[in-house]
Amino acid sequence: MLVHDVLAHAVKLYPNKVALIDGEVRYTYRQASERVHRLAAGLLGLGLKPGDNIAILANNSHRYWETYFSASVAGTPLAPLNMRLAAHELEFILNDGEIKALILGPEYIGLYEQFKAKAPGIKHVVILNGELAGAADYEQLIASNTPLPGPAREWSEDDMFNLCYTGGTTGLPKGVMLSQRNVVSNAQHAILTFGFGERDTWLHVAPMFHLADAWACYALTMVGGAHTFLGAFAPQACLEVIEHAKVTKTILVPTMINFLVNFPGLKNFDTSSLDLMLFGASPMPVDRLMAAKEALGPKLCQAYGMTETAPLLTAMKMEWTKYEGTEAETRRLASCGRQVSGVDVRVVDGETGEDVKPGEVGEIIARGPNVMLGYWKRPEETAAALRGGYMHTGDLATVDEENFVFIVDRAKDMIISGGENVYSTEVENALYDHPDVLEAAVIGVPDERWGESVLAVVVPKEGTKPTEHDIIEHCRGLIAGYKCPKQVVFQDTPLPKSGPGKILKAELRKPYWADKEKQVN
Amino acid sequence: MLVHDVLAHAVKLYPNKVALIDGEVRYTYRQASERVHRLAAGLLGLGLKPGDNIAILANNSHRYWETYFSASVAGTPLAPLNMRLAAHELEFILNDGEIKALILGPEYIGLYEQFKAKAPGIKHVVILNGELAGAADYEQLIASNTPLPGPAREWSEDDMFNLCYTGGTTGLPKGVMLSQRNVVSNAQHAILTFGFGERDTWLHVAPMFHLADAWACYALTMVGGAHTFLGAFAPQACLEVIEHAKVTKTILVPTMINFLVNFPGLKNFDTSSLDLMLFGASPMPVDRLMAAKEALGPKLCQAYGMTETAPLLTAMKMEWTKYEGTEAETRRLASCGRQVSGVDVRVVDGETGEDVKPGEVGEIIARGPNVMLGYWKRPEETAAALRGGYMHTGDLATVDEENFVFIVDRAKDMIISGGENVYSTEVENALYDHPDVLEAAVIGVPDERWGESVLAVVVPKEGTKPTEHDIIEHCRGLIAGYKCPKQVVFQDTPLPKSGPGKILKAELRKPYWADKEKQVN
Repeated sequence: MLVHDVLAHAVKLYPNKVALIDGEVRYTYRQASERVHRLAAGLLGLGLKPGDNIAILANNSHRYWETYFSASVAGTPLAPLNMRLAAHELEFILNDGEIKALILGPEYIGLYEQFKAKAPGIKHVVILNGELAGAADYEQLIASNTPLPGPAREWSEDDMFNLCYTGGTTGLPKGVMLSQRNVVSNAQHAILTFGFGERDTWLHVAPMFHLADAWACYALTMVGGAHTFLGAFAPQACLEVIEHAKVTKTILVPTMINFLVNFPGLKNFDTSSLDLMLFGASPMPVDRLMAAKEALGPKLCQAYGMTETAPLLTAMKMEWTKYEGTEAETRRLASCGRQVSGVDVRVVDGETGEDVKPGEVGEIIARGPNVMLGYWKRPEETAAALRGGYMHTGDLATVDEENFVFIVDRAKDMIISGGENVYSTEVENALYDHPDVLEAAVIGVPDERWGESVLAVVVPKEGTKPTEHDIIEHCRGLIAGYKCPKQVVFQDTPLPKSGPGKILKAELRKPYWADKEKQVN
Repeated sequence: MLVHDVLAHAVKLYPNKVALIDGEVRYTYRQASERVHRLAAGLLGLGLKPGDNIAILANNSHRYWETYFSASVAGTPLAPLNMRLAAHELEFILNDGEIKALILGPEYIGLYEQFKAKAPGIKHVVILNGELAGAADYEQLIASNTPLPGPAREWSEDDMFNLCYTGGTTGLPKGVMLSQRNVVSNAQHAILTFGFGERDTWLHVAPMFHLADAWACYALTMVGGAHTFLGAFAPQACLEVIEHAKVTKTILVPTMINFLVNFPGLKNFDTSSLDLMLFGASPMPVDRLMAAKEALGPKLCQAYGMTETAPLLTAMKMEWTKYEGTEAETRRLASCGRQVSGVDVRVVDGETGEDVKPGEVGEIIARGPNVMLGYWKRPEETAAALRGGYMHTGDLATVDEENFVFIVDRAKDMIISGGENVYSTEVENALYDHPDVLEAAVIGVPDERWGESVLAVVVPKEGTKPTEHDIIEHCRGLIAGYKCPKQVVFQDTPLPKSGPGKILKAELRKPYWADKEKQVN
């Protein structure tokens, strides 16, 4: 089963069911499929050939969903681009990825103007809804082409379908090659785990360029569910669409959940249709989770994955969050769940390669039909990441007696101070426990004596003025002395975040490591 | 994900959950897995090598379930044998399939004695629970071996895992080669469709040699559900186990459903735990279905598949059986549902190869990761069955406007009696072997108890006067009892034939089916 087969399945079983809800726009699966097949014809009509790589740079909308499926019909692998990147980063990606056409949201015309001269490989631009000289109009392509009768390419399920760039730890972004089978099997794993059905409506609010949300395009289509969209997150708009489209399921990043929980008008909206709010991409401190559960009801489940695994590796299920003891329940709240059905996820000791015992820290590795083909044009990094047949995530975790996984840190974020491992998540949990802390991140900075020392960057809540001493003393009451920050830096502006809302620790670290290199194991 | 990975997943997530319930026997997933790995060690200890084919001939029990998983751990493809076959049929299969070891239920020792001298390839026999000179004892193998730490073979997902013999339309049984991926993907398709969960308990009552039930071994294990077993169907025993083990889901053949509905003690048993009774493999008239729905509640859903597709192709879902109009509901009762998620099922015109329009009759063809590797040592029949990349089922069907499939004739020549396929060619071969038979044709006629029963129309040679008894007794020496004609009708005129000389069975069937419809529809 390929991506276009997923759509064909929905059209066969649910032709007249609403597929896409975007403001006042509604398309049934039959209509959506027709648009997808017209768009595919239009793309090829521009001069693209099956096998050419294309890209999209846009905010969420039904057109993003259509583009994913059209790429499969047209036979053109799709690179969904992070719209928060700088022009020179996008330029690198478009050239490195040999992109021949760009589908562009009108919000990013200015950004495009900055890099277009340096990305001469882009022969065609399609503008989603707006005007741009020399660009083809998206709706015009749909209106003026007859639908392709079927896929323009004899895809094998192991052909690259998506080329997803991730910010590389070593500087340059790397293109993750995901096959047709990768994305389709991941969608199946999601349904096997969460049990989606035709009555579900998914809200695409996390950026659709990122796999963390994009997988739901396939998963909800596979079961005949509906899709609704929010171009950019804002608490009120999010709550409006949840109420309007009777959203049942979504995935959010913790930052968005925080905004919702703290939104004064929350209670004015009917969110009772929602029965599952997944969150992922970054850990969420336990007390924040408790607050969110209080405000939103018991709907929050953590999921964990990465672009390289298309993306799901582990997930918490609603039925696993219900435990008798309050203590166990609270502890489980911090877990990203267990391996999803279809994937083999292990936490292994870096030295021996053996599974760690409960409580020990090891690296998460994974095997399954969702594991990437490799990094585009980077055979050595591919071989290293996939050594022994497992994707090595670089993320550190513990497991409990029932194989629930608890992420302790991204390997590159771990701080080694005086030979002791300090996992930033643990320190951040302590920081967030302080009543005046709005946002917090912990990094390691060079230290003559200890190698690295722990530094906390804190954004205080409005109207509060915590001191460094307050914060450090607060942590001392909660965690071991060597884990406590040695320095606290306050700032009033939000912490820098990636497209999917992950705090960019590399940015925070940069000024401290100007002339030095952080050792990453 | 391979078959042993399915078990490993259950052990990781549900180690202490009950996996197997068989009378008073209960094993958790951890215990069941340990038994499986001990048995695998025991099988290899007998002298088998990974890659050797093995077979099982037994009634349902937890040991049948264990054998499926042990085959994956030991690396030995498994041929599950139809225990209703005649000795010489089994002999053919064991020799054709190059079977090196036989796992034998004590009920079939007598049958084994009849063919053992003619199946010299069988070097090892394991007796399930009983005594047989020269055979290894199943429980002894488990008790005396330490568990294999992991699979003894580096399986590829496209390696043959099962070799399932079906009565060939050309006379001799054909071995269907099913890969690891075939059976695992089918299990995933089943969960995607029916939404099994860890709270489910499946009753294995249809024979476990047949894929129609065997797939549930993998599907329920994948979600951490429980399995319970009935060695041989009887209404009281079936109801007892449903009540005792709180069975939630099962698959039955229509004959069994009939027995349950007509069992006087039905109301004395608590069957309220049951929420899904799948049925398939054989026709069920609509009025029988209505009666069953009346007696058992709205739990009946028809499924359709075949050994060659591991097996699921289409299924009805509970939510699709609820329609407002009674008429539509009644009509839908006769449908075998729609393609399961993951499989592309089409009904195509034999001439044009195009999808039929609603109401037209065509052949069911299917494509997906569940479609067999091919027929064992039969490249030409494989190529014919899989031409154009689709499995050609030979079954005829119509579809309605919403792509619900209605089987019209499960291959013109096939009779389904009590859930067993009887291929008329095979019976006709036996008839033609009788010295007095000039022409013979076999058809299915309506039978209150079995759905259909086998009727032979025979034209005797001039000057001969065979009796019905002669003919039936003759067949009994050649083929399994259930395949033998129940009635023989003699006529002196030649059988009706089409232009190219093909016997027109539709003509022969007509008088017997005057007021009824063959098949459900």
